[in-house]
Amino acid sequence: MGRDTLILLTNDDGVWAPGIRALAAGLAALGEVRVVAPLAECSGTGCRITLKDPLRVRPVERGGVPFGLGVEGSPVDCVKLAFRVFLPRSPDLVVSGVNQGANLGVNAFYSGTVGAALEGAMLGVPSLALSLARFTDPDFRLSVEVGTAIARAVLGRGLPGRTLLNVNVPPLDPGEVRGLRLTRQGTGGLREEYERRTDPTGRDYYWIKGQPSPGTKDETSDDAAVRAGYVSVTPMVADLSLRGGPDGLDGLEGLLRGLLPERGEG
Amino acid sequence: MGRDTLILLTNDDGVWAPGIRALAAGLAALGEVRVVAPLAECSGTGCRITLKDPLRVRPVERGGVPFGLGVEGSPVDCVKLAFRVFLPRSPDLVVSGVNQGANLGVNAFYSGTVGAALEGAMLGVPSLALSLARFTDPDFRLSVEVGTAIARAVLGRGLPGRTLLNVNVPPLDPGEVRGLRLTRQGTGGLREEYERRTDPTGRDYYWIKGQPSPGTKDETSDDAAVRAGYVSVTPMVADLSLRGGPDGLDGLEGLLRGLLPERGEG
Repeated sequence: MGRDTLILLTNDDGVWAPGIRALAAGLAALGEVRVVAPLAECSGTGCRITLKDPLRVRPVERGGVPFGLGVEGSPVDCVKLAFRVFLPRSPDLVVSGVNQGANLGVNAFYSGTVGAALEGAMLGVPSLALSLARFTDPDFRLSVEVGTAIARAVLGRGLPGRTLLNVNVPPLDPGEVRGLRLTRQGTGGLREEYERRTDPTGRDYYWIKGQPSPGTKDETSDDAAVRAGYVSVTPMVADLSLRGGPDGLDGLEGLLRGLLPERGEG
Repeated sequence: MGRDTLILLTNDDGVWAPGIRALAAGLAALGEVRVVAPLAECSGTGCRITLKDPLRVRPVERGGVPFGLGVEGSPVDCVKLAFRVFLPRSPDLVVSGVNQGANLGVNAFYSGTVGAALEGAMLGVPSLALSLARFTDPDFRLSVEVGTAIARAVLGRGLPGRTLLNVNVPPLDPGEVRGLRLTRQGTGGLREEYERRTDPTGRDYYWIKGQPSPGTKDETSDDAAVRAGYVSVTPMVADLSLRGGPDGLDGLEGLLRGLLPERGEG
């Protein structure tokens, strides 16, 4: 670490959010930090990429000093553009956050914070997604402390291929946090409803209304750890393939192969 | 199967695309098909959800007869709205497609086609994503035949929890297809570059330019199967957690736990 270490920092709350600024300051202790982040808030964009629109990029100052590049695109666009255009070389670490609000359970799939870290992992670089489980009046100090410590550890030892760490910090004071747990992605998450409304011209529309999820009882899950007051660290892999052997798929292979008998070379 | 079977059909090319219409006709042999799909093309939207905008919905006719509902939102929005608002009950199967263009390797993460099927799996219903590996002059007949046969098989035996099948059909005539392979998600995919351009007012912008990926040599991968002339069926799970034991993570747990020593109850 030090001057030779290059860290790409992005987020999904946008380049103007408080969380990314706090984290940039913390990560500066580990090396050179390059910020490339969306100009607009991009919550809920998952792994979205912009295929059919131009991407504008402009330098952003915060507090009167250069802060980074703002992109009219998604968090994944930012990571791709940084790798392909703006960074002098592949970075040693990609960090995404600090997100204002948890990214636990199924919500990891909708999260632009996690999406950016998935992209980093797919591009072959160890990656972290970092979120604080609180929307209002966030205090990022503990998240930055934890995130920087984990970043230092990951820079020191690396991660397996295509792996990222999805870190969620409970909304507690440092003295109240109970420790750190390695977890699995839970099945809890947004339990959404839709509210039907009518606009001033008489046309109906629907608006998503998230309900707090009861979460999962599984103690190994990410949401259970945060609920219990732990920092949750979920090792994730950019690979959706069903794990393990044919468990639960017994017979499926034969059934499917039977649909389309294999032919020889011709 | 039959009159009691309920199938939700969506896509990411939009409710007006040829692929969804062809598939709706094929799936009608298996039960009642309800179409809820985006009004606009949504390629590259992954698992995006619309959090901060209203979702408008309107009935769509094709060929002078009712076809389904069009939504001003993403494929995942369509699945959520269908489950929460428009379907009389949870469907027996969610199908997404036929997409015009392959969804192989890392591209599965960016794919709205796969995103919709992931959402179905997260909502507890067996799901299929179906794509034809050809953009121009697509002939959907083989895709519809294969997709309908796989849908019938899945309706008959189910899938494990949170599982979907990502099906990619090679751009061949039925007589040329060599068979069907159960595969893993490969690491190939879009090898993008960005082209820098200047707009009429003198401002720079970037535009993504996909390059054909060389793909992976791994014979078990999705892209290798399609390249070799097979229908690729990748069982996927809506769970990003790193597979298996601590392989590759040796020492990480201790290292991380040491960052934040565990505290007792108080």
